Amino acid sequence: MAVTFPLGFTASGATAGIKPSGKPDLCLIARDGGTDGGATGCAMVFTANAVTGAPVIVGKKRRAAVLAGTLATPRAVLINAGNSNAATGQQGVADAEACCAATASLLGCGPDGVVPSSTGVIGRPLPVGKIIAALPGLAASLGRGEAADAAAAAAIMTTDTVPKSARAEYRETVGGVSRTIRIGAIAKGSGMIAPRLESAFAPPAASATMLAFVTTDAPIASMDLQRATETACSGSFDRVNVDNHPSCSDTVIVLASGAAGGTPIVHGTEAYERFTGALRTMCEDLARQIIVDGEGATRIFKIAIRGASSDEAARKMCAEVVSSPLVKCAIHGRDPNWGRIVTAAGNAGVWFDTSEASLTIGGVEVYRAGVPVTEALTDPRLKTAMAGKEVPLELVVGRGPGAWWMLGCDLSKEYVVINAEYTT
Amino acid sequence: MAVTFPLGFTASGATAGIKPSGKPDLCLIARDGGTDGGATGCAMVFTANAVTGAPVIVGKKRRAAVLAGTLATPRAVLINAGNSNAATGQQGVADAEACCAATASLLGCGPDGVVPSSTGVIGRPLPVGKIIAALPGLAASLGRGEAADAAAAAAIMTTDTVPKSARAEYRETVGGVSRTIRIGAIAKGSGMIAPRLESAFAPPAASATMLAFVTTDAPIASMDLQRATETACSGSFDRVNVDNHPSCSDTVIVLASGAAGGTPIVHGTEAYERFTGALRTMCEDLARQIIVDGEGATRIFKIAIRGASSDEAARKMCAEVVSSPLVKCAIHGRDPNWGRIVTAAGNAGVWFDTSEASLTIGGVEVYRAGVPVTEALTDPRLKTAMAGKEVPLELVVGRGPGAWWMLGCDLSKEYVVINAEYTT
Repeated sequence: MAVTFPLGFTASGATAGIKPSGKPDLCLIARDGGTDGGATGCAMVFTANAVTGAPVIVGKKRRAAVLAGTLATPRAVLINAGNSNAATGQQGVADAEACCAATASLLGCGPDGVVPSSTGVIGRPLPVGKIIAALPGLAASLGRGEAADAAAAAAIMTTDTVPKSARAEYRETVGGVSRTIRIGAIAKGSGMIAPRLESAFAPPAASATMLAFVTTDAPIASMDLQRATETACSGSFDRVNVDNHPSCSDTVIVLASGAAGGTPIVHGTEAYERFTGALRTMCEDLARQIIVDGEGATRIFKIAIRGASSDEAARKMCAEVVSSPLVKCAIHGRDPNWGRIVTAAGNAGVWFDTSEASLTIGGVEVYRAGVPVTEALTDPRLKTAMAGKEVPLELVVGRGPGAWWMLGCDLSKEYVVINAEYTT
Repeated sequence: MAVTFPLGFTASGATAGIKPSGKPDLCLIARDGGTDGGATGCAMVFTANAVTGAPVIVGKKRRAAVLAGTLATPRAVLINAGNSNAATGQQGVADAEACCAATASLLGCGPDGVVPSSTGVIGRPLPVGKIIAALPGLAASLGRGEAADAAAAAAIMTTDTVPKSARAEYRETVGGVSRTIRIGAIAKGSGMIAPRLESAFAPPAASATMLAFVTTDAPIASMDLQRATETACSGSFDRVNVDNHPSCSDTVIVLASGAAGGTPIVHGTEAYERFTGALRTMCEDLARQIIVDGEGATRIFKIAIRGASSDEAARKMCAEVVSSPLVKCAIHGRDPNWGRIVTAAGNAGVWFDTSEASLTIGGVEVYRAGVPVTEALTDPRLKTAMAGKEVPLELVVGRGPGAWWMLGCDLSKEYVVINAEYTT
């Protein structure tokens, strides 16, 4: 189970005819009505791209109102695949709002109680008529359990080859009262994946079309949930990169029902740390599912950098390594052409002293204190590491305190085939 | 003719056995001795990568000494292909200096009179013995004319499918005296191409392994030549991007013999503007040869952005468009999937108002004031433009004064084949 694993949620999927393939393309995730408002939070993070889809514009408006306390926590998320409703101007915003209003009237909440999300081709008018026609059936089929979750996960896929979902559960005792906290999620993402999700509180930090919708029965208010969600995204979705082209539609939305009961989870407590940790671990699982299913990917690699002047310096270097087509092709060819890895890190705009730099591939040091370890190239462990499903790369760039890691995937001929013929 | 088109230069190429293929891999370009020092300038620009090849380290040392007036203008450039002598530590620097010293003794100049340059696989010791053994033959075959220039151009190729050269010539009258100024060049570059060449005067501005070696018989001192060269590179090599991985070895070296005679060309004069313009135009020709021969490239595209807040903002947006694998695959597939172009520009970290944004492909407006021009997709001119050898993309992002352009190439399956099996 996924989004209906936590108490207080239902989900459904339907075929509205947006995708030319005739596959499912409309998904609804809804929180049950009637729960205590103080424990039912909602958090959202979106792409940092300057060009954003209409649903992102609407979502940011909802978020601002929720955090300002002028809007009750939204009840539902309506997601369509096959059309991103992006680069569609004011009409796109009006279209997204029309779909939300129609959904809200079926659920019995205000029109602002539904958050929209869209993925698919850019720059095409949203087929509002098809969506609104499919909504009554979608709402009527809302349910709990494996089948509902599977229908929801399938309806948000685009070039994904597999549906993506995850869940987490833990028990805790707070104020003498024991409770079980459940978290569930569905996600999509395969191409246009390089999330740099912005923050509601700070300038953009780290963007793709990746979408993730998370539910939890934890009792937590929106402000605390927003903070926990941003921490979780920084440690998960922001660390994967398929093709270095942040999307205009990247979205993570978390809804909390509060149905687990007990004292609300607030920032600064052990309960908050436990919840944020569980959320981050589950999001990392989803992020890994996304990179493994990267368009055309056959294998993945993890670059871990330490010894940098700051975590941000290490992050910038990791971002160059995972996005280099030359590194990605070397991984594809099982070629220990490590000079590409070191020089990619060198392109981050962050200086480092190569005489302090070392690189290890699968435990085999190939570059030590700025000079090649020539005998490494014939080490059989190197060949084994380069052939693995996940190639581990560890780069030390000095003696500083900064460290980061990111996951990338190889670049195959199949990526070109998929993306040279996406709209035609 | 190319590097021996200007008066006062000889060139040669040889096979030292560095390349496993047994193709030519060693090149020498030499300025005749005995010319007036004040008119024989030398300029160099190098990669902005934090990881630089040993020849770049040596070259920067020569440049600093030349600009400080403590070193006479270098007499020659020794270039090898097949091994970049990068990530090779202090031994690499010693190896580069040993090759320079051996060349200098053959040419009859001091060891600092030769500048080294290398391209090829990273992280392998330079085969100094092979190079030094080949030097007497290389020096003995120095000559002028088509055959010498062709031998030089062939010896610096790596994955290039064609040798690259250019020349320019103009007449001018300065101080009542007429003269002919000639400029010639050879270049290489096909992969690891995204030049951001640093400046001797300012922080890094814009970098690949692209190498270009330029000769001119203009009388111009090093400081003025350095300034002219940086202006020319910013308008040429820095505007092409094959795979967004700036190399550790990018190098442009310009040698002036002064053999055209007359008053030296100095900054702030019409003669300087004329010379810089001719140099830039010739470098743009070479840059275009490089992008057309980009690894696996079948077609190129030009993104021109205007209406940005500054030229630098427009440059950043252009850089995102030419480096997006999704844009490159769309160009390969002749697919007018213009949403990828607009969203790539949106990833530059530069905000713009999409309601002011418009995109034209081959004269057909596909996106106007933030909304799709749906009828454009069936315009036959759009199909023709997408099928051209050079696809013209024009993006307006507002009403600001900033503008820039860059050239990119498509991403084909062949790129993956070339780069998945480069060292193995």
